Amino acid sequence: MSPLRNDTFLRALLRQPTEYTPLWLMRQAGRYLPEYCATRKRAGSFLQLCKSPAMACEVTLQPLERYDLDAAILFSDILTVPDAMGLGLYFEEGEGPKFERPLKDESDIRRLAVPDPHGELQYVMDAVSEIRRALDGRVPLIGFSGSPWTLSCYMVEGGSSSDYRKVKSLLYSRPELMHQVLDVTARSVTAYLNAQIQAGAQAVMVFDSWGGVMAHDAYREFSLRYLEQIAGGLIHEHDGRRVPAIVFTKGGGLWLESIADAGFDAVGLDWTMDIGRARALVGDRVALQGNLDPAVLFASPEAVAEQARRVLDSFGNHPGHVFNLGHGISQFTPPDNVSVLVDTVHEHSRRVRNPA
Amino acid sequence: MSPLRNDTFLRALLRQPTEYTPLWLMRQAGRYLPEYCATRKRAGSFLQLCKSPAMACEVTLQPLERYDLDAAILFSDILTVPDAMGLGLYFEEGEGPKFERPLKDESDIRRLAVPDPHGELQYVMDAVSEIRRALDGRVPLIGFSGSPWTLSCYMVEGGSSSDYRKVKSLLYSRPELMHQVLDVTARSVTAYLNAQIQAGAQAVMVFDSWGGVMAHDAYREFSLRYLEQIAGGLIHEHDGRRVPAIVFTKGGGLWLESIADAGFDAVGLDWTMDIGRARALVGDRVALQGNLDPAVLFASPEAVAEQARRVLDSFGNHPGHVFNLGHGISQFTPPDNVSVLVDTVHEHSRRVRNPA
Repeated sequence: MSPLRNDTFLRALLRQPTEYTPLWLMRQAGRYLPEYCATRKRAGSFLQLCKSPAMACEVTLQPLERYDLDAAILFSDILTVPDAMGLGLYFEEGEGPKFERPLKDESDIRRLAVPDPHGELQYVMDAVSEIRRALDGRVPLIGFSGSPWTLSCYMVEGGSSSDYRKVKSLLYSRPELMHQVLDVTARSVTAYLNAQIQAGAQAVMVFDSWGGVMAHDAYREFSLRYLEQIAGGLIHEHDGRRVPAIVFTKGGGLWLESIADAGFDAVGLDWTMDIGRARALVGDRVALQGNLDPAVLFASPEAVAEQARRVLDSFGNHPGHVFNLGHGISQFTPPDNVSVLVDTVHEHSRRVRNPA
Repeated sequence: MSPLRNDTFLRALLRQPTEYTPLWLMRQAGRYLPEYCATRKRAGSFLQLCKSPAMACEVTLQPLERYDLDAAILFSDILTVPDAMGLGLYFEEGEGPKFERPLKDESDIRRLAVPDPHGELQYVMDAVSEIRRALDGRVPLIGFSGSPWTLSCYMVEGGSSSDYRKVKSLLYSRPELMHQVLDVTARSVTAYLNAQIQAGAQAVMVFDSWGGVMAHDAYREFSLRYLEQIAGGLIHEHDGRRVPAIVFTKGGGLWLESIADAGFDAVGLDWTMDIGRARALVGDRVALQGNLDPAVLFASPEAVAEQARRVLDSFGNHPGHVFNLGHGISQFTPPDNVSVLVDTVHEHSRRVRNPA
């Protein structure tokens, strides 16, 4: 493998000094890019795109051709693990992900087993290797997975939900069964992320997208505990280099200090919390990743630049910041606004580090 | 008017001692009750139900017949104010509220004016008077309105939104126009709530349902500021009695201390924050209302009772707690679980106040 030419992102995650604030965008390979839509059309379906290492590699690299981003992220879906557990992931046009065989009863739960990352999930490892080769040391590659709680929501609900009725009924009425789902899922996620690291992922991120829908006590018992379990089981070094791990609980601002103690190197923040306040709360325990409201990218270029500078200024001139949105980039984002964002973050953060 | 026989709710809002923790449930007159569905069917549409004082009165009282609740809340919609501004509220079966004439450009915004509460909105005042008469002093009646920000979201988007694209574009690109919408709306809400108080509402609540979707700075500038404006303009006494005002920003836990300083008597909390921690943060500035996860009501009766006791125990034996859910009750709630909740809250809170 070629040596890494831009490791700014990895250094920032480890709270080492960097010349500027690195950035990448959640869902940066996505529908706001016409070239993505073209590949997606050629693939036939979203799932076929995910399952083809060649096409997953192609779309992973597309945003890097347009923008000076500091990291690439594996193109995949967060629900690959339950799919490999046999739940049958599918997508209906214009709707969110669904499972053909959601967890309906106790016997479904008792049958759950950790999938071999080199069995059903080998296509993900193949994509990781292929992307690493194609990146050729340009920027680091991030591997990822959904969190146990987030995966369990989909596994029990059978798809997206507005009220999480089934999974919360299970959680409150049969906590021991809920724990069983979460434990198998946490072990699966750990094995899956470790296999991604061995295949070439240089950092990993756990997306706890639905953590914020829980009550405070429930979050601690049914999400955070399994995030800790994963952090404890991850490979932290590979090929002689530290592999930083990031955790992101959307809507988790109120629990930031506990999340910062969960054993990850960095914590993702959504846009509801002032990142300067967040930095003060976590101190030097972790780096922070975030946190521009993705809706800012719908506004004028001037507003995009101004709001990006506000995030940087709020964090201040300290090590340990990776710039990102507070959630995935919207399909309705004008691509030119992303250029404005990337250039502003790089230029302004260089200025902050080297005041005239 | 008959004297009020149960003022526990009003005393708790003013942080005066009570014999037990009073409770009511957001959206307590709603689709989970078969008797509500029957009246709703008879009305023909949701909007006709809201606009008929006789039927609005009928459904307002229905949950009080079933459960020992400590307050009634006016049955109405949060979007009556923009409807009276001429935006044309309508509902399509199975979908959220929509406007026929959303705010599309600057001239639409410049034309906005404060509606006379005794003009287009007289039906609401008639409902308030009729409900007060029907309650006959049994429990207090709560009046309410949507917050300026929440109303503005609907007015600009034209309906519900998953990304608030239009309203956030306006906010970031044309803040002065956004402020104009919010200012007219805040003055309208103030006049509307004051008219409800004069018609007989004994407490009022402002629902900032979408406040939590904003970035921290934007929340302060585009929601909180107008909540403060309303608090400053409300009638605080009527008929020789204090009229407490409650504010509820869903997803506002991170901003609790600022919200507590906005000038309201009580702050509603969703279920993501521990209510004991919230009490410690707000001290004796305000009462708190909340905060059981409404999804708990999908679980077993034992789980309902246990989780309700946890909320009460977390708040502790202090004045200033009104029990509620952290959001509106779901249409899928089993009505029997509501009985368990009401009885548990009353019994357990009496026990906490008078330990054996």
